[in-house]
Parts: sequence; structure tokens; C-alpha cells
Amino acid sequence: SRFAYVRDFELPDRLLPGTFILLRIDGHAFKQFTDAHRFAKPNDPRGLELMDHAAISLMREFPDIILGFGQSDEYSFLFRKSAALYNRRQSKITSILSTFFTASYVMHWKTYFPDTPLRYVPSFDARVVLYPGIREVRDYFSWRQTDTHVNNLYNTAFWALIHQGGQSKKDAHESLRVRFAWPLL
Amino acid sequence: SRFAYVRDFELPDRLLPGTFILLRIDGHAFKQFTDAHRFAKPNDPRGLELMDHAAISLMREFPDIILGFGQSDEYSFLFRKSAALYNRRQSKITSILSTFFTASYVMHWKTYFPDTPLRYVPSFDARVVLYPGIREVRDYFSWRQTDTHVNNLYNTAFWALIHQGGQSKKDAHESLRVRFAWPLL
Amino acid sequence: SRFAYVRDFELPDRLLPGTFILLRIDGHAFKQFTDAHRFAKPNDPRGLELMDHAAISLMREFPDIILGFGQSDEYSFLFRKSAALYNRRQSKITSILSTFFTASYVMHWKTYFPDTPLRYVPSFDARVVLYPGIREVRDYFSWRQTDTHVNNLYNTAFWALIHQGGQSKKDAHESLRVRFAWPLL
Amino acid sequence: SRFAYVRDFELPDRLLPGTFILLRIDGHAFKQFTDAHRFAKPNDPRGLELMDHAAISLMREFPDIILGFGQSDEYSFLFRKSAALYNRRQSKITSILSTFFTASYVMHWKTYFPDTPLRYVPSFDARVVLYPGIREVRDYFSWRQTDTHVNNLYNTAFWALIHQGGQSKKDAHESLRVRFAWPLL
Ligand SMILES: Nc1nc2c(ncn2[C@H]2C[C@H](O)[C@@H](COP(=O)(O)OP(=O)(O)OP(=O)(O)O)O2)c(=O)[nH]1
Ligand SMILES: Nc1nc2c(ncn2[C@H]2C[C@H](O)[C@@H](COP(=O)(O)OP(=O)(O)OP(=O)(O)O)O2)c(=O)[nH]1
Ligand SMILES: Nc1nc2c(ncn2[C@H]2C[C@H](O)[C@@H](COP(=O)(O)OP(=O)(O)OP(=O)(O)O)O2)c(=O)[nH]1
Ligand SMILES: Nc1nc2c(ncn2[C@H]2C[C@H](O)[C@@H](COP(=O)(O)OP(=O)(O)OP(=O)(O)O)O2)c(=O)[nH]1
Ligand SMILES: O=P(O)(O)OP(=O)(O)OP(=O)(O)O
Ligand SMILES: O=P(O)(O)OP(=O)(O)OP(=O)(O)O
Ligand SMILES: O=P(O)(O)OP(=O)(O)OP(=O)(O)O
Ligand SMILES: O=P(O)(O)OP(=O)(O)OP(=O)(O)O
Ligand SMILES: [Mg+2]
Ligand SMILES: [Mg+2]
Ligand SMILES: [Mg+2]
Ligand SMILES: [Mg+2]
Ligand SMILES: [Mg+2]
Ligand SMILES: [Mg+2]
Ligand SMILES: [Mg+2]
Ligand SMILES: [Mg+2]
Ligand SMILES: [Mg+2]
Ligand SMILES: [Mg+2]
Ligand SMILES: [Mg+2]
Ligand SMILES: [Mg+2]
Repeated sequence: SRFAYVRDFELPDRLLPGTFILLRIDGHAFKQFTDAHRFAKPNDPRGLELMDHAAISLMREFPDIILGFGQSDEYSFLFRKSAALYNRRQSKITSILSTFFTASYVMHWKTYFPDTPLRYVPSFDARVVLYPGIREVRDYFSWRQTDTHVNNLYNTAFWALIHQGGQSKKDAHESLRVRFAWPLL
Repeated sequence: SRFAYVRDFELPDRLLPGTFILLRIDGHAFKQFTDAHRFAKPNDPRGLELMDHAAISLMREFPDIILGFGQSDEYSFLFRKSAALYNRRQSKITSILSTFFTASYVMHWKTYFPDTPLRYVPSFDARVVLYPGIREVRDYFSWRQTDTHVNNLYNTAFWALIHQGGQSKKDAHESLRVRFAWPLL
Repeated sequence: SRFAYVRDFELPDRLLPGTFILLRIDGHAFKQFTDAHRFAKPNDPRGLELMDHAAISLMREFPDIILGFGQSDEYSFLFRKSAALYNRRQSKITSILSTFFTASYVMHWKTYFPDTPLRYVPSFDARVVLYPGIREVRDYFSWRQTDTHVNNLYNTAFWALIHQGGQSKKDAHESLRVRFAWPLL
Repeated sequence: SRFAYVRDFELPDRLLPGTFILLRIDGHAFKQFTDAHRFAKPNDPRGLELMDHAAISLMREFPDIILGFGQSDEYSFLFRKSAALYNRRQSKITSILSTFFTASYVMHWKTYFPDTPLRYVPSFDARVVLYPGIREVRDYFSWRQTDTHVNNLYNTAFWALIHQGGQSKKDAHESLRVRFAWPLL
């Protein structure tokens, strides 16, 4: 039809071949979402297991994924270097995989939160990052692992000071100021 | 930490300012999905209303969207030219909005399909297209409208020839060959 | 041959249709170049006319250019919205036009600087910017025009204070501090 | 000034870190240019040496280049993986280096073609390609080398059949049809 020219505005977005595709999915505004659904602090096993469930479905569906790593409200997925899914089109990969993950998360919500109905619609942001070599890939996961360690160490200590130590939030923050994780920096 | 350099591989993806952002979401492999869930042919009102429901939630959540148009397994959303959500970052917009739409679709599935449990995880592809002016935007919606009209005319006639006319699929295709929609081309 | 796969790493770079292409070429490190070739300060008519000469050749060669504007060591070229040269491939446009401009600049150097041989190889940076509408295009040229005006006003006054007023550079800067161009800001 | 917003339309174009940048420069419409300046066929040593001269100046100016390879009207330049020139901005690299090469080519034209004035303005296209690993880099140069070999073998034989064998162009093409370079394919 004479309107078909509007397709010319869709520009190609194929990702550079020969690189590792890394997809990171992260809960959008999950500070609010975890509060609204009364997640245990700092880590709610139900939430973490639901994330794992969604990640496992995704990895079963897309065998080009060779590694997954999750923490908090995020999950990272590494693709084999030769991955050619959707002809490596960035928008296709980002959207189809993140919506699959999200659909799985919502479908299985009530398995993990049988007593907590979803109060509103969750969403996730997703991005693709390209890494040329295995050194960068390993350092990527070290980066996420360090972040996990720091956050968990801090958060676990923080909430223990409150729940078990009887401190206020302000005091707990103060107790932990500048005292953690030096070897990791 | 010494691993933080891996963030340098995340390249900026801000969309050109001063253009209309158009987001099109389309069911991934919905030929199979609608078969597996026994959607009525060619249009299942339950499916269409569920799509509308998800679209309405999305437009309520993101007031920068000023127009939505849906048909079949797809929905198009037009943003005001001045939209600045997520600093116009392409991946953020594509992923957050498509996962929101998907989550809403799955959350409300059982309202529209009370007797048909979800048999597997649905997903959607999404893409952003930029249009510089209102002429292209109008032609974009004319393009989708023409597509709707052609598909519906054809499909409605096709299934009527089968269900009401008693023809085989092969005969119905043959009856309709090269006979429709000239004025639209 | 079995090596031809390396072409797959050349990704398409077509510019969004329906937008105005603006090409800005700017002398690379021309502070040093104009010093080394003893350009008159602040404006050397020979240098400006050589830039004009190169710009005119370029506009004769590429009729898609509808407007050119130059000042100092830079030139801006506006293309008609429908320009389709090199299928709007960004690298082709940027490189072919900037090397053409540069070749013309060097070829005609001795016409404008008969007594000053080129002491080393000059170069230019070039970039393409897309503007969706005529308002932005007009404001682009206003931006360059304002810059011209400010720089010329300042530089002309500055060098007049030195050459005609007998001030030192330091004193001339001081005399002009915070005193100019208010209406333009 | 109130026009400065037009800079927001300049989008960042930093190249992916950790990859090899390959810059290929190729004479624009050099079929015509070499004819117009009566280059010897198939290889004019003056032309090749002028290309080499320009390439050598470029490599002296930009020490991030670690390998150069030229043939016919083209030259390829490989950058070290860690190259950070111009913050890896694609347009800066493409334009500054290709205009430098061109300026050198024009400046030294009369050294190599003392009896042939430049009849019109030459230009070059240039493009950047990213290669993630050394295997692709090696295969890139194999690709160019194979191309050189095939073209030279063919062209040398072709012009020898004409100049020394007294054949017409048509006959020479016919003599060489489907008979060369099998081992290379
Ligand atoms: N209580 C609780 N909170 C959690 C749990 N897992 C994640 N969260 C919360 C803690 C953080 O506030 C938030 C994750 O941090 P982010 O940096 O991703 O921020 P957020 O998702 O709020 O915003 P974003 O849209 O990602 O920028 O989710 C959990 O198991 N229990
Ligand atoms: N029976 C039935 N099928 C529908 C309905 N709405 C959409 N579909 C089917 C018809 C088409 O086969 C399909 C939509 O066509 P598409 O071009 O989007 O293809 P599909 O989603 O299979 O693949 P894709 O991943 O989008 O390339 O969905 C409906 O209401 N009823
Ligand atoms: N004496 C003299 N200098 C000029 C003339 N035209 C331009 N210039 C000098 C003044 C500035 O220092 C310089 C242009 O400023 P730019 O911002 O383009 O800086 P420059 O080219 O040095 O560095 P760049 O590579 O563009 O970042 O060229 C002229 O006619 N006479
Ligand atoms: N006679 C002669 N011709 C040469 C010599 N070196 C290159 N050429 C010519 C042969 C080819 O026609 C042309 C290079 O082929 P290209 O594929 O680069 O085509 P051309 O530059 O015409 O068009 P382009 O703008 O690159 O698409 O230059 C030479 O030493 N002597
Ligand atoms: O923790 P990240 O990687 O999501 O970092 P951020 O500060 O949230 O940045 P972004 O806006 O890129 O999500
Ligand atoms: O109908 P569309 O627009 O999705 O077109 P397509 O042929 O499915 O192409 P694409 O691979 O871009 O979804
Ligand atoms: O004067 P411009 O536009 O060249 O601005 P700049 O500060 O030189 O910046 P750039 O590094 O983009 O040339
Ligand atoms: O020989 P090349 O690599 O320049 O290939 P081409 O067929 O000229 O293609 P392009 O339009 O990319 O220069
Ligand atoms: Mg984030
Ligand atoms: Mg989050
Ligand atoms: Mg997070
Ligand atoms: Mg499609
Ligand atoms: Mg579909
Ligand atoms: Mg569809
Ligand atoms: Mg500059
Ligand atoms: Mg300059
Ligand atoms: Mg300048
Ligand atoms: Mg070419
Ligand atoms: Mg050529
Ligand atoms: Mg060539």
C-alpha cells in the first residue's frame, strides 16, 4: 500500500557478531514493589525463588543462554558467543526475553506468594551489553558478585542490628558507616 | 571496585529528540499461542479485550502515550513529541513498557479466559520507531489500519466460507485468491 | 572466499529518513595550524576565502546541500530533507564530503597563501546531526550565528585593544571581562 | 544562549571498548579518477607510492595504528585494541583520519605526478569496523590479501594479453573466463 514507506523508519539493530551478549533484567522500582508486597528484609526467599523460577524457564526456552546469575531484583544472562537468535536483532532479543521472564514471574507469583495477591502490575527493565572476550565476561560476573556480597553483608548486618540488636534504622546505619568491605574495593 | 570498568561497555542509547516515539508490541509466535489456547477464528473477543485491558493499563501508567491502536496480537503506542521518559533511553522504554504490558496481560488472563488456563509462557516482541513529523505518524496508523482491514476482510470471509459455506481451507483460499482489497493497494 | 564473513561485522548505518541532515566540518587543532601559518588575527581573509572556496566546490558537487554557513575554521551544510545520497549511509556521507572539502582546501591553498607553503598536513573533523523540523534547523543556524557574533565581537575588540590600544593580552582580556554580549545570552 | 539546545541532537557515538578498530579508506569513484589522470594499467607505481606516502604520514601521526595494508585505491589501518583516541568517538576517528590521509595525498600529488596536474578534487570514503578478536583481524587481512591477489593476477594477465599479446579487451576477458584463482576461493 502507499503507506508501507513508514517501515523505512525501522532501522536495523543487529548486534556486533563474535561478541558475548549479556542480558541484564532488573525489577523496575522494586523498592516500592517489595515494600507493597511485604517482602522479608533484606532477602525474601519467596521472591528470590520466584526470580530463579523465571530464570530457569527462560534458560530452558533459550538454549543459547549458557550462564545465569541472580541477586536481589536482577538477573544476568550470558549467551554463547556464536548466538544467532533473531539474527542478533537487539530489540527482538531485549523485548522477547524480558517479556518472557516477566510473564513467567507473574504466572508463578501465586505459587511463591499464595497469601499475597499482586496489588499492581510489576515490570522490569532489560538491557543488552556486548563483551568482546572472556576476561570481560568473567569481570562482569565478578562485578555482580561483589555487589551481591557488599549489599548482602551490609543488609544482613543492618537488619540484624535492628531485629536482633534492637537498634533504630538511624543507629544501624551509623554503626555500619565506613566499616565494611574494604578488601572488596 | 576494580571490576566496575565493565560498565563502560554499556553504550548510551538515547533516542533523537524532537521526534515522535512509536512503540509497537506484537505477540511472539501467537499463531501457535492462539491455537494452543483455542482462540475463536479469526477474532476472539476475549483475546482482543485482554489486549485492550493491557493497553489501557499501560496508557494509564504512562501519560506520555497519547494514542493507542490495536488489532490481532499487536498494539501500537504513540508518544507525545516532547516525551522525556527515562531520558528517552531506548532499552529502558522498550523493556519497561513491554514487560508492563505483558505482566498486565498475564495478570488478567483468567478474567477473560476463565476456563482456559495458560498452558505456557507467552511473550511479546517490542520495537521503537521514530517519526519526525505528523504526516508520517498519520501514515503509520493508516498502514496499520489498512493491514487490519485487509486481514479482517480476508479472514472473516475465509472463515465464513468454511464455517458457513462448508468449504475446505484449500477451497476457501482459492475462492479468495487475487480478489480482494484492490482499492487499498 | 572463506574470509568473506568479515564483512558481516560492517553494520548498517543508514540515517533516519524524513529528517534534515546537517554536516558540520571543523578544522582539527586549527589554533595550532593558524599560528603555524601566521594567519592574521582574529580573522584572516585569506583563510576565510579558502574555506569559502572549498565550501562552494562541495555545494556544486553535492546539489542535495541547500544551505552553507561558515565562520572561523568551521562550515555547516544543510541537506534537503529528502536527500538520499549514498542511501543516507552515515559513514559514506561523513567521509566522502569531508575528504572532498579537505582536498579542495589543500588544492587551492597556494591560490590564497601564495607566500606560505603548507608546513604540515591539515585535517578536519566532521559530524552529521539530524534535525526533525525547520524550527530546530533555524535555531541551529542561530546558534552558529550567535557564536560567530560573540567570538568576532570579542576577538575584534580584543585584538584592537592590543594592536591599536597598545594593551597587553592580559589587560585586554581584563578589559573585556563580563562586559559583552548580554543581549545574546 | 537559548539556541544551545540544538546540541542535544548530537548523539554520542563511542565505539565498543575492548575491540580492534579497523579503518578502511577507499578512493571515491577512482575508476574515473585513474582514467582522467591516465594512471598506468593495471597498477600505476606512482599512484601506489602516493597512497603509501599518505598511509605512512597517517601512521606516524597516529601511533595507535599498528598495521597498515594497501592495494589499488584502498588502505586498511588496524588500531591497537586499547586505542582511546578521541575517546573512541566514531565520527571523530573516521573524519579526522580520512581527511588527514586525503590532505597528505593531495599535498604530495605533484611529487609523484609531476607532469599531471590534478584535474578535479579527489575524495575518499572511510569506514570503521570493529573486530572482537585476533582471528577475525587475521581473516580480515586475508580477505584483503585474497582480493589483491585475485585482482592483480587477473588484471596483470588481462593487460599483458592486450599490451603484449595484442588481444582486444573482449578477447582478453574471454581468455581469462573461469580459469583463475580456484585455490583461493
Ligand atoms: N525487602 C526486600 N527488598 C528487596 C528484595 N530484593 C530486592 N529488594 C529491593 C531492595 C532494593 O530497594 C530494590 C532493588 O534495588 P534497585 O537498585 O534495583 O532499585 P529499584 O528496583 O527500586 O529501582 P530501579 O527501577 O531498578 O532503578 O529491591 C528482597 O528480597 N526483600
Ligand atoms: N484464532 C485467532 N488467532 C489470532 C487472533 N489474533 C491473532 N491471532 C493469530 C493470527 C496470526 O497467526 C497471529 C498474528 O500474526 P503475526 O504476524 O503476529 O505472527 P506470529 O505472532 O505467529 O509470529 P511473530 O512472532 O509475530 O512473527 O496471531 C484471534 O483473535 N484469534
Ligand atoms: N589567527 C586566526 N586564527 C583563526 C582564524 N580562524 C580560526 N582561527 C583559530 C582560532 C581558534 O583558536 C581556532 C578554532 O577554534 P576551535 O574551537 O575549532 O579549536 P581548534 O581547531 O584549535 O581545536 P579542535 O580540534 O577544533 O577542537 O582556529 C583566523 O582567521 N585567524
Ligand atoms: N589504471 C589504474 N587504475 C587503478 C589503479 N588503482 C586503482 N585503480 C582503479 C581500478 C578500479 O576501477 C578502481 C578501484 O575500484 P573500486 O571498487 O574502489 O571502485 P571505484 O573507486 O571506482 O568506486 P567506489 O567509489 O570505490 O565505489 O580504481 C591503478 O594503479 N591504475
Ligand atoms: O544498578 P544499575 O546497573 O541498574 O545502575 P543504575 O544506576 O540503576 O543505572 P541505570 O539507569 O542504567 O539502570
Ligand atoms: O508484521 P511485522 O511488522 O512484525 O513484520 P515482520 O515481517 O514480522 O518483521 P519483523 O521481523 O521485523 O517482526
Ligand atoms: O565547538 P564544537 O561544537 O566542536 O564543540 P567541542 O567542545 O569542540 O566538542 P566536540 O568534541 O564535540 O568537537
Ligand atoms: O569494496 P567495498 O568493500 O567498498 O564494497 P562495495 O561493494 O563498494 O560496498 P560499499 O558500498 O560498502 O562501499
Ligand atoms: Mg538500574
Ligand atoms: Mg530494580
Ligand atoms: Mg536491582
Ligand atoms: Mg513481526
Ligand atoms: Mg505476532
Ligand atoms: Mg502480529
Ligand atoms: Mg569541536
Ligand atoms: Mg577546530
Ligand atoms: Mg572551530
Ligand atoms: Mg566500496
Ligand atoms: Mg574506490
Ligand atoms: Mg577500491
